[in-house]
Amino acid sequence: MVSALDSAFTSATFSDEETAAFFSDRAEITALIKFERTLAHVQESLGIIPAGTGKMISSDLDNFEVEPARLAAGYTKDGIVVPTLLKLLRQKLRNESANYIHYGATSQDALDTALIIRIKSAISIIEQNLDCLITELVSFAIAHKSTVMIGRTRNQNSAPTLFALKVVNWLMPMRRQRKRLTELIPRLLVLQLSGSVGTNAALRGRGKEVYDALAKSLELSSSDSPWHAQRDSIVEFANWLSLTAGQLGKMGKDLLLMAQNEVGEISISNPGKSSTMPNKENPVSSETLISLAAFCRSNADLINQTALASHERDGVSMAIERLALPSLICAASGSIVRAKDCLKNISVNTAAMQKNLVADRGLIMAEAAVFALMDCTSREIATELVSQACELSTSNNSHMIDELKALSSFDLDWEGMKSPESYLGDASDIIDKVVSEIKN
Amino acid sequence: MVSALDSAFTSATFSDEETAAFFSDRAEITALIKFERTLAHVQESLGIIPAGTGKMISSDLDNFEVEPARLAAGYTKDGIVVPTLLKLLRQKLRNESANYIHYGATSQDALDTALIIRIKSAISIIEQNLDCLITELVSFAIAHKSTVMIGRTRNQNSAPTLFALKVVNWLMPMRRQRKRLTELIPRLLVLQLSGSVGTNAALRGRGKEVYDALAKSLELSSSDSPWHAQRDSIVEFANWLSLTAGQLGKMGKDLLLMAQNEVGEISISNPGKSSTMPNKENPVSSETLISLAAFCRSNADLINQTALASHERDGVSMAIERLALPSLICAASGSIVRAKDCLKNISVNTAAMQKNLVADRGLIMAEAAVFALMDCTSREIATELVSQACELSTSNNSHMIDELKALSSFDLDWEGMKSPESYLGDASDIIDKVVSEIKN
Amino acid sequence: MVSALDSAFTSATFSDEETAAFFSDRAEITALIKFERTLAHVQESLGIIPAGTGKMISSDLDNFEVEPARLAAGYTKDGIVVPTLLKLLRQKLRNESANYIHYGATSQDALDTALIIRIKSAISIIEQNLDCLITELVSFAIAHKSTVMIGRTRNQNSAPTLFALKVVNWLMPMRRQRKRLTELIPRLLVLQLSGSVGTNAALRGRGKEVYDALAKSLELSSSDSPWHAQRDSIVEFANWLSLTAGQLGKMGKDLLLMAQNEVGEISISNPGKSSTMPNKENPVSSETLISLAAFCRSNADLINQTALASHERDGVSMAIERLALPSLICAASGSIVRAKDCLKNISVNTAAMQKNLVADRGLIMAEAAVFALMDCTSREIATELVSQACELSTSNNSHMIDELKALSSFDLDWEGMKSPESYLGDASDIIDKVVSEIKN
Amino acid sequence: MVSALDSAFTSATFSDEETAAFFSDRAEITALIKFERTLAHVQESLGIIPAGTGKMISSDLDNFEVEPARLAAGYTKDGIVVPTLLKLLRQKLRNESANYIHYGATSQDALDTALIIRIKSAISIIEQNLDCLITELVSFAIAHKSTVMIGRTRNQNSAPTLFALKVVNWLMPMRRQRKRLTELIPRLLVLQLSGSVGTNAALRGRGKEVYDALAKSLELSSSDSPWHAQRDSIVEFANWLSLTAGQLGKMGKDLLLMAQNEVGEISISNPGKSSTMPNKENPVSSETLISLAAFCRSNADLINQTALASHERDGVSMAIERLALPSLICAASGSIVRAKDCLKNISVNTAAMQKNLVADRGLIMAEAAVFALMDCTSREIATELVSQACELSTSNNSHMIDELKALSSFDLDWEGMKSPESYLGDASDIIDKVVSEIKN
Repeated sequence: MVSALDSAFTSATFSDEETAAFFSDRAEITALIKFERTLAHVQESLGIIPAGTGKMISSDLDNFEVEPARLAAGYTKDGIVVPTLLKLLRQKLRNESANYIHYGATSQDALDTALIIRIKSAISIIEQNLDCLITELVSFAIAHKSTVMIGRTRNQNSAPTLFALKVVNWLMPMRRQRKRLTELIPRLLVLQLSGSVGTNAALRGRGKEVYDALAKSLELSSSDSPWHAQRDSIVEFANWLSLTAGQLGKMGKDLLLMAQNEVGEISISNPGKSSTMPNKENPVSSETLISLAAFCRSNADLINQTALASHERDGVSMAIERLALPSLICAASGSIVRAKDCLKNISVNTAAMQKNLVADRGLIMAEAAVFALMDCTSREIATELVSQACELSTSNNSHMIDELKALSSFDLDWEGMKSPESYLGDASDIIDKVVSEIKN
Repeated sequence: MVSALDSAFTSATFSDEETAAFFSDRAEITALIKFERTLAHVQESLGIIPAGTGKMISSDLDNFEVEPARLAAGYTKDGIVVPTLLKLLRQKLRNESANYIHYGATSQDALDTALIIRIKSAISIIEQNLDCLITELVSFAIAHKSTVMIGRTRNQNSAPTLFALKVVNWLMPMRRQRKRLTELIPRLLVLQLSGSVGTNAALRGRGKEVYDALAKSLELSSSDSPWHAQRDSIVEFANWLSLTAGQLGKMGKDLLLMAQNEVGEISISNPGKSSTMPNKENPVSSETLISLAAFCRSNADLINQTALASHERDGVSMAIERLALPSLICAASGSIVRAKDCLKNISVNTAAMQKNLVADRGLIMAEAAVFALMDCTSREIATELVSQACELSTSNNSHMIDELKALSSFDLDWEGMKSPESYLGDASDIIDKVVSEIKN
Repeated sequence: MVSALDSAFTSATFSDEETAAFFSDRAEITALIKFERTLAHVQESLGIIPAGTGKMISSDLDNFEVEPARLAAGYTKDGIVVPTLLKLLRQKLRNESANYIHYGATSQDALDTALIIRIKSAISIIEQNLDCLITELVSFAIAHKSTVMIGRTRNQNSAPTLFALKVVNWLMPMRRQRKRLTELIPRLLVLQLSGSVGTNAALRGRGKEVYDALAKSLELSSSDSPWHAQRDSIVEFANWLSLTAGQLGKMGKDLLLMAQNEVGEISISNPGKSSTMPNKENPVSSETLISLAAFCRSNADLINQTALASHERDGVSMAIERLALPSLICAASGSIVRAKDCLKNISVNTAAMQKNLVADRGLIMAEAAVFALMDCTSREIATELVSQACELSTSNNSHMIDELKALSSFDLDWEGMKSPESYLGDASDIIDKVVSEIKN
Repeated sequence: MVSALDSAFTSATFSDEETAAFFSDRAEITALIKFERTLAHVQESLGIIPAGTGKMISSDLDNFEVEPARLAAGYTKDGIVVPTLLKLLRQKLRNESANYIHYGATSQDALDTALIIRIKSAISIIEQNLDCLITELVSFAIAHKSTVMIGRTRNQNSAPTLFALKVVNWLMPMRRQRKRLTELIPRLLVLQLSGSVGTNAALRGRGKEVYDALAKSLELSSSDSPWHAQRDSIVEFANWLSLTAGQLGKMGKDLLLMAQNEVGEISISNPGKSSTMPNKENPVSSETLISLAAFCRSNADLINQTALASHERDGVSMAIERLALPSLICAASGSIVRAKDCLKNISVNTAAMQKNLVADRGLIMAEAAVFALMDCTSREIATELVSQACELSTSNNSHMIDELKALSSFDLDWEGMKSPESYLGDASDIIDKVVSEIKN
């Protein structure tokens, strides 16, 4: 329990239990056995292994369990679990069928396919949670589509915006991620069965037949060529997971910044407590999203190295994948679930947003004022006047628009110019469009 | 000239000149001016700025050049180049039009769009080079589709394969990358024009009109919402570039391993020379591909951080993108060009491949032998016999199949079993299928 | 000019001109020639090359310059610049001496030593700037040692602190970095001269003599063994550079957070301006420090890969080092200079700090209150009372201590408990001690 | 069991059991309780908490165990385990003492100190294993100090060397790492006890006294200032761990390359077996060292981000450290143990080294030949002749020196020139010196 994703007290924070279940030792062994059982079944149907052996393998290994620790010594020695596992499975099988398990396959066929089977299950959870998150972000945007607040660029007050437009910045990348996931799935959920060096030579000319039947049986896509040393679709998926967590990290970061006491625009209904300061209300879920983004990025970077798998199959790449991929999948999946939880627990403090707008004393209307003044004068003069008004507003602690009015002789709707609502541009239209497109 | 991509003596190795031209200081300034000129033109057409001002801006700034060094102080102070650049442009413009340049836009609108304009140009070069590389890999595969060699897994001899099947491992990821590029382009080549906080408020309700007209004029796609702080499509592109370089790094690594003196299966027609050892023929292009893969991965990882851009626009993310993205694009583009060059300069040494097969003394036929023996005995006994034969072959420096024959009493085609050609499985079919699909 | 460290308009922001001068093409060529000249000189003194040839090499190449572009083709072909450079140098040399330049050395001897010569120069600048930065941080701490402000943990208000204690958090890591630099220098500034595979065989038994004399002459340390493929001290230095930039990134991040409008505790005297919003005062130098931290970390990570340099010398590691190390050195050096500039331009807004303390309404005195109440009751009851007071304070917009007083019947110094100054603990002592230790 | 470091079948490969024991959930809880018990004990001695309470806390919690899962909900909510743990501890304590546990401390004081306590234990194991590895490398170098082999640069044959000199390339970085570890330990094994914002305000002016007494009692070093947000020494340690694994990765890579069938210079006495190919002898331990190097590098990079911890204490940095540091420590510690195992299982095949030297046909004597010819002619002519001889040797499959003899009219010791032993330069001296320095 060295990893925070396995620890009894932190796994619920950094992982997703449902997803993690597919990446336990037992789940891997189960998937490996499923590969071997289905392969035998398919090979019997095609007359490649003797009649009855496929069925025997399938029934003898039905619900058969192997204690993971029994595979430890074999893994250390072989750098893969398959030889030792097969030895145990063969001990369980009746003699004649023991010959025909793993027939023509190589360890990595079993390992890659067992990985893909479990990734497929994980993706179905991820898709559900992502869809649900998108729905909640849409609702959140709708709920706050009239909530005016300060827009901030480069961490400074800029011009007014709607809170829902900030939510759109969280929502749109998720929507595109949904699309990207759909695009990558057919490249990713692909059967591996190509034999020792990718030629399926042991299947004596019937490799393609077995491949197609096994792919159909396991409900996986087909590949024209062995992908033992073509890890690009795994890398693509790793990058996808990391980018998902990264974009949710942005949501976490925005919330963390908004939850600062001086800003106070959001608060969290179940904040983290301190061991010594009763006043503390820590925005833990935001921190979790940010740290998971960093963790996922780091693991995805590691997996990117496997693109350089050498020759026909590479043990280093296999080890790196094992070290990084299950953790990455569970952490990214966890970040989606955490994001959902986070949204549920946010209280949007519109009063604080209003207070911050008031405290700004009209400085965020500076751009609006320049454009308004341009009806009467040049941009250069307008900008100069507004800049002066900003400075006076700061030194006099007065409203910028009042200072501007005093500085200029123009006849303008000065009171209107004070209203942030008057300078929201297309914000509402953008929100409406985005929201309606996603809902439909 | 601190970067190896800019150095007069290393840029030709690590970058691609044609691509790099789009990421020079001058090219950026030109693209920024193009944004401003086209924006003015479009705004005049829509009656948003006074008649004539768009034309004046466009003609006055036609071929106008700004010495990059004049923007240095402004960049340090503002962290962006736009305010200083606009000051210089306005000095050049006749009075009335100076008011209407950059009308309603924010600096990042200009910067992001100028970036996308140049990425679009870079992608067209990358596509050409990638298509050309794919064609050459196809030709290479066809040329070597009967070249038998040792297949290697986990850096050890395994079973026979065809050299063309190794080439397929380089080719297929490129083909999928081509597909991925097609998918990501519409998400990436998108106009940015949303004003200070993404609402286009300064355009007073006509933001959408201007946006659509400008996108059309610049031949860029449209986005439903401002992507100032939604960097996912930039990240996706960065990951794509890195994965391309990563997969070419695999080709470089395979070649480096094959070029080792004891292996000798390929040699390079223009090898690198040593300053002191006349015997040296260094596989420089392979090393370059591997190092570019590492460099691209590192820069892509950096760009992944920009997913966490805060609030409406984030200066840190902008700076990180500037520090990493141009270098990444040029290095990845360079790696494609280097890969093409590399392929042209490879001599495949089929005699050495044959010699290595002979030196193996039939060990790579071990799996074949097990499956052949299974016609006569159980897998367990077959495996045991072949294992013994392997050991005897090593200690006696004899052919494994001869030892196996001596060990067993079976009547099998022992001579046929010695032939690597007899154990290539579906290799030819796989190559044929892959090659024909890509050519059509 | 693809890299932001080379761009005419961004290099002054992301690099340090003085440091960068050592990593130009010309500076590298000069250092390589220096290596060759000094080697020849030393070898003549030891009678290893004919009398007069060392002097001739030294004088003929005095001030000799090679146009970097002339080395481009050679670099692409050889993956190193030395063979082509030697060819040009030999053309310049009188016949007899041409035989004796680079005598017994290998390219990497020249390249590594030329790198170390320039790193030595860079370190002397870095040391000066770092010492200067430390001095300024000490002054800054002294200047603000009575400035009370809100201490923030997990981005939330916690308890009172002194601004100088925050400065100590920036200062102490710099001080330890100074110590670490002193420790690593003798491991880093080491001559490389070991010949083609590290045995100095071409020097026919006199390798050690030449090595020692050359190390003395170039004022570099000695190594017991060739470090061609032992890159740990380069990696250590890369990590040092990255950690320096990382810790300055913390300073940048703290300042960025304090400069937010709602916090307003610092402002910047030369803020970055916007192209459209006259109100904007962007904390550009803080952003620069944060982005440089990320850039340096990424490049250091790349350099860490060179630890895996294969066999006796590795071309991939050499290329990676070239791609990452000069940029890393210049960016980290730049971050130190930027940090100095940044400190000079900060205005500490003590009024805003006071305002934030007032706005907190005593919540940050919650821990203090618990400990005060523990003189009268149990911790459990104290904590419970203070928690209630915190909640009441928030809902009533009242001072927490007033609520607490109303809630409890204890006779305590309630007014004293309102004063943040009363709950600063050892802050002053810590600052005094740190400051006095560094000054002495 | 998502992480390969926790999996029942892979943890023995990728982690070190002894080290991992310090980073289990239970070990963390035990260390946290130790912190609280010792703090109470010290505070009682100093009269800070009532007489008897320290002893009561200490005895009541002696051997007290908390089921880790009971802390899960608290961790998710608070982002730290301490508040929930304290609640459970207080339930266990007799009333009066419950008030005085964790007196004046903040959660991070307990967490950081509990981390350092366990790092201290881990370091003592790491030191032992590292010393042992160094000793074995020294023995290995001594055993092979006369084993001549081909030296390889840029993955090509270069000039002769001794196998022991390659071992020196593995040994020297370990020796320097040992030194670096000694340097960093006093900076790393430092008590954290500074209270909520680093002022120890709750200890009412007695913070320094308690700090010093607790440091003494826990046998940890002291810090002048709180290091809650100064993570540089943790980062330094992370970099140290990663560099250790990185340098052992080089050993793994060299061995992997030497174990290739065509090279065959080493073999492994307990090789990994294949599920289908009886001939396979996979160099699993080498692969493990390389993949652990990559894993450690990735986790160290992640920890480098914590340098940017914000304000007085940062929850994101704490989470990142938790996600990466225990895994990094265990993986790096594992790599040292694996390296030791690996050395024990290597058979050095001197016959193969000899065979490769013979197969080289004197090409690696090219540099030697140039220097020998320079006694008779210019370097230019010598190089030209040797280059021709190299080419002829390759085309004629003859010995290079024979070709050179035929090409030239010089009277030289041609037979001597064929002997790799004649061109080993200072190799023996270097090995002797390195070995004797380390042994003494």
